Amino acid sequence: MAVYTAVSDQKLKHFLADYDIGRAISFKGIAEGVENSNYFLLTDKGPHILTLYEKRVAPDDLPFFLGLMKHLAGRGIVCPTPIHGRDGEVLRTLCGRPAAITSFLSGVWPLSPAPVHCGPLGEALAKMHIAGLDYPVRRENSLSVVGWQALLAETRERANDFAPGLAKELEQELDEVSALWPDDLPEGIIHADLFPDNVFYEGGKLTGLIDFYFACNDFLAYDLAVCLNAWCFEPNVSFNVTKARLMINAYRKVRPCSDAELSALPLLARGSALRFLLTRLYDWLNQVDGAMVKPKDPTEYIKKLRFHRDLSGPGAYGVE
Amino acid sequence: MAVYTAVSDQKLKHFLADYDIGRAISFKGIAEGVENSNYFLLTDKGPHILTLYEKRVAPDDLPFFLGLMKHLAGRGIVCPTPIHGRDGEVLRTLCGRPAAITSFLSGVWPLSPAPVHCGPLGEALAKMHIAGLDYPVRRENSLSVVGWQALLAETRERANDFAPGLAKELEQELDEVSALWPDDLPEGIIHADLFPDNVFYEGGKLTGLIDFYFACNDFLAYDLAVCLNAWCFEPNVSFNVTKARLMINAYRKVRPCSDAELSALPLLARGSALRFLLTRLYDWLNQVDGAMVKPKDPTEYIKKLRFHRDLSGPGAYGVE
Repeated sequence: MAVYTAVSDQKLKHFLADYDIGRAISFKGIAEGVENSNYFLLTDKGPHILTLYEKRVAPDDLPFFLGLMKHLAGRGIVCPTPIHGRDGEVLRTLCGRPAAITSFLSGVWPLSPAPVHCGPLGEALAKMHIAGLDYPVRRENSLSVVGWQALLAETRERANDFAPGLAKELEQELDEVSALWPDDLPEGIIHADLFPDNVFYEGGKLTGLIDFYFACNDFLAYDLAVCLNAWCFEPNVSFNVTKARLMINAYRKVRPCSDAELSALPLLARGSALRFLLTRLYDWLNQVDGAMVKPKDPTEYIKKLRFHRDLSGPGAYGVE
Repeated sequence: MAVYTAVSDQKLKHFLADYDIGRAISFKGIAEGVENSNYFLLTDKGPHILTLYEKRVAPDDLPFFLGLMKHLAGRGIVCPTPIHGRDGEVLRTLCGRPAAITSFLSGVWPLSPAPVHCGPLGEALAKMHIAGLDYPVRRENSLSVVGWQALLAETRERANDFAPGLAKELEQELDEVSALWPDDLPEGIIHADLFPDNVFYEGGKLTGLIDFYFACNDFLAYDLAVCLNAWCFEPNVSFNVTKARLMINAYRKVRPCSDAELSALPLLARGSALRFLLTRLYDWLNQVDGAMVKPKDPTEYIKKLRFHRDLSGPGAYGVE
């Protein structure tokens, strides 16, 4: 939870003068998200979200992200839609940072994801994958195998400070996963970070997806593997196969998966667990004094990684 | 900025069942306030604020605060109004904490208070003082002279770690201020914490006052002295007499001040500076590892204290 950049009422007023969305009636920093500063912005024309992009987002990637959100929204995916200024631009500068206003989505994200959330999640993910197929811009996944190798290089030396033996386990894991990593699964735009706080529901109905700032081109099934990790483990890190089955079955009804995709799921889930383990470990080892966000404990993802590693096939996910 | 308590969608739904305000459409933690957890709660009947009272607020004081907000709202002061549940109660429990829903106020607080804000501020403060005169409940100001003595006792030993010589300066200051502190100025309900982030404006018009969780019975002129400190210094801690004059004159038009009140202003402002210096110093010396809120630097209030101490009378505030 964080708002890194304080925006004055004066600067806001000046910023809004470039838009046709009315004048600010309320403006409150939102205590969610760790990458950017998000504000709830109510104008006399309705609610919006104002985002200031902080240092973790590469400014060069912003046209990709904002263009994607517009593209998906145009194909019926409910997601934040960038609002154009009077000059037609969606990306401008506020308080020295790139900034954009997007539409406001109703709904509440589930703090404790339940089976009832997982079917609608799988369906929405598949629809997003299909809607993204004709998005004409590419962005490589900087947090895939090559990125993991870079992260391991930066964390290896102190990994054992976090957990004895972790450095060796990570090395072996990365070697194996890299050697086995597929190269011929169906690709497209993936969300790559579809955790429960990025999915809104209202009365049991999924009402929207947010936070596309890790979106990139990669295997579509890898997105499903990210969701297996993010949604299907209980707080004690036991795996809930009911959730996984509901999610995967709903996904397959919208976008049928090949046998190769299904067979690859344990490996993709292992890679995804490794990805979140490495970034969490990096953040844990590089804590900044006085930082506003407490890093997440990497331990959870050590356990998830081991779970997927020990599977013989996708049957454990309820895949028939 | 902080949300200390995460409220699940399930717990929220259960909580809202006791109210007649519709179902949640959006629910977002607000990155403002350091004492409590505040959520923006949009239901199909409109926007509200949900507050969970964290450990710094004494539960026994909550009926005083919530009753005061209702009392003031009933007398035309725009402030958050507690919303009754179906049982008529405004205070209940959520996630193990006392919690209340209040009305949502429009407006934006000024990050850089300008002279244009100060007249409306003085007027609103005086109106609030008058509206509070017949509030039938009392609450002593726990952060007046006796409270300062307790705070000094807890900070004296390490005050010099923060700034050499500070312990002695604080002792002398508290001795003098205690000896001179008046006992016969007009009293009533004061806000006691009316900083810029607690006052909303819309298009130059003051639209409301929030955060009454330090409100208490004390000298009405002491509230004006708090505002002198909170609103009339520039970021470099130079005093802006134009702001002070606008504020005090607007106040006096609504609630005329006695000569004794005006003469006491430098002493009251000195006491108020001492109060914020002591609480900030206490927080600074008692920082908690991993805390979500960075304590405010006490230095600003050392300078403010010295400014008021050196004045010969209220003329420096533009008082004629």
